[in-house]
Amino acid sequence: MTNERTINIRRIIGFRKLDGLLITNIKNIRYLTGFTGSSGFLIITKNKNLFFTDFRYKEQAEAEVTGWEITIENGRRTKLITGLIRKLAIKRLGFEQSITYEFYDLLRAKLSAVLAPQKNIVENLRKIKDKEEIESIKKAIERAEGAFLAVKPGIRPGARERYIALKIEEQLKKRGCKCPAFDIITASGKNSSMPHARPSEKKIERGDFVIIDWGGEADGYYSDMTRTLLMNGKGLSDKIRIYETVNNARKKAVVSVKEGIKTQDIDAAARDAIRKAGYGEFFGHGTGHGVGLDVHEHPRVSWTGSERVRNGMVFTVEPGIYVPELGGVRIEDMILVKNGKAELLTGLSRDLEIIN
Amino acid sequence: MTNERTINIRRIIGFRKLDGLLITNIKNIRYLTGFTGSSGFLIITKNKNLFFTDFRYKEQAEAEVTGWEITIENGRRTKLITGLIRKLAIKRLGFEQSITYEFYDLLRAKLSAVLAPQKNIVENLRKIKDKEEIESIKKAIERAEGAFLAVKPGIRPGARERYIALKIEEQLKKRGCKCPAFDIITASGKNSSMPHARPSEKKIERGDFVIIDWGGEADGYYSDMTRTLLMNGKGLSDKIRIYETVNNARKKAVVSVKEGIKTQDIDAAARDAIRKAGYGEFFGHGTGHGVGLDVHEHPRVSWTGSERVRNGMVFTVEPGIYVPELGGVRIEDMILVKNGKAELLTGLSRDLEIIN
Repeated sequence: MTNERTINIRRIIGFRKLDGLLITNIKNIRYLTGFTGSSGFLIITKNKNLFFTDFRYKEQAEAEVTGWEITIENGRRTKLITGLIRKLAIKRLGFEQSITYEFYDLLRAKLSAVLAPQKNIVENLRKIKDKEEIESIKKAIERAEGAFLAVKPGIRPGARERYIALKIEEQLKKRGCKCPAFDIITASGKNSSMPHARPSEKKIERGDFVIIDWGGEADGYYSDMTRTLLMNGKGLSDKIRIYETVNNARKKAVVSVKEGIKTQDIDAAARDAIRKAGYGEFFGHGTGHGVGLDVHEHPRVSWTGSERVRNGMVFTVEPGIYVPELGGVRIEDMILVKNGKAELLTGLSRDLEIIN
Repeated sequence: MTNERTINIRRIIGFRKLDGLLITNIKNIRYLTGFTGSSGFLIITKNKNLFFTDFRYKEQAEAEVTGWEITIENGRRTKLITGLIRKLAIKRLGFEQSITYEFYDLLRAKLSAVLAPQKNIVENLRKIKDKEEIESIKKAIERAEGAFLAVKPGIRPGARERYIALKIEEQLKKRGCKCPAFDIITASGKNSSMPHARPSEKKIERGDFVIIDWGGEADGYYSDMTRTLLMNGKGLSDKIRIYETVNNARKKAVVSVKEGIKTQDIDAAARDAIRKAGYGEFFGHGTGHGVGLDVHEHPRVSWTGSERVRNGMVFTVEPGIYVPELGGVRIEDMILVKNGKAELLTGLSRDLEIIN
């Protein structure tokens, strides 16, 4: 597995006429080597797989990483890299654009090799999930769904936002998630009009929309989903209309998924539906994003998304409408592109539930 | 508060002959504006405080940020910045070195202004904590200590590492922490010889060292501490010797703290004590690090630490000895530099406890 991935990288290195590639993104390192620690880097050349980490991860690296020559860093990373590049006679070194300017500047000052910035070499491979990755993602979804269903009876008027978030997190961990995929969002009433509100001490009230946005983890892979519940109360018909508009937009987007189209076409499907219903100005974010070793990764499903949809991609579809003061609705599913179209991975119902 | 901080930044901008400074580090943004969201940037000029965030954080920014002109980004950050720099007639723009190479490259391609990388402008201010910050840190410590004491009776042979970590996390949240300061470490027996081991399904056994490394949060500020318990069992006298060596090194380091010395002198105090006892090769990491809005921030207390110790600094002192196969010990306290010397902020006992 890891080996096949490295072979692909080496092929790209060849295409791009690089003598070596420096990999610094920790998720890319995990993808290529299986290493789950939080510090390290890789150098890949035509015939070498070099793995570096520091003292703290020595034993962990030895246990997790096979097929790579392991070196323990001595705390002077730039010097170590400079020495190696010279020893390996690398004339053109690719590096990932996600390194900090600071690190780039240090390398530039000390290296004789040409530094060639590279965009998304590993990220592009990561877009297409293999069978094993899809299994992990499904497990992450299953854990998240179980956690939600366990907590759901408590999502009702009188419960505090923060308490709900805490309970979901507990349930995720009980089901084996090392951590929630991100800080869980529980946003009710007015707070739900902020797409990224943080759980507050506010109690859920009658008439509130309650947005729950959460995700699980399994084998380092994440899931990401959102459900919105409506508390019975005033102004019900307007709120039902908003909910159904979002749900219809979500459906339109899912159905629009086809191999070969651009991701912006999926975004347009959702956005047009919301615009036609008169809520266009209240949907300010993109329609979705890839999910894998990162909660947000390629492809980006937004109005600027020009990536082509391919079998094996896993991404979210999550339109929303957020009306200041009144509140917001978001419904988020995860889909896998399979046999040229969307397979829904999220199993939870999307039907409107009005809680008394 | 925020205002005084911005005045200091503006003074530095003047010294460095910049027409403006682009701030992108999210913790620096929080420090200067009070904004607790996760996306945004600042531009500070001689007479303007400009704050930018995206649509998702509109209402949150309006609630949290005062004294700054708030603009909502439209998704095209580089274009927005380029336009502004032109409009404000900025000729020399400082930027934080922590931006990615990718973002730097985009700015460089599109800006007419000179781009001047800046190191630690805000980070240097953040090293010295004010009264309010120290209160928050003390609260974060108090919550973490309470969580540990609540779980401690369960740290005994038969308990699983992951269960202990989970319980501490639950207790932290119960005490009001939004999140643990970092993934809690519970490492027993052989695992404790890896300074950054992740909690496993391993059960604690007789004779194990058990390292617990955890931290709390309050108002966005963190705490960070480590305790090591010893389970009664074989080879006790060797293990006691290791523990006492670490504890002695810790004490030596704390006592060595004086205003004006370099942080490497503190590191040397701990390291010498461990070396003299014959364990020098088993202490591979630095002695400590600043703690505040980041769990790891300036100053760095290591053998290369050349920063001067100042009143108002808050940092950890955390020597350790890690013997492969046998296990490891780390004891970590947080100190505040006050009246020219160390005041211990961590209250938990450091005396060796042997659990039967």
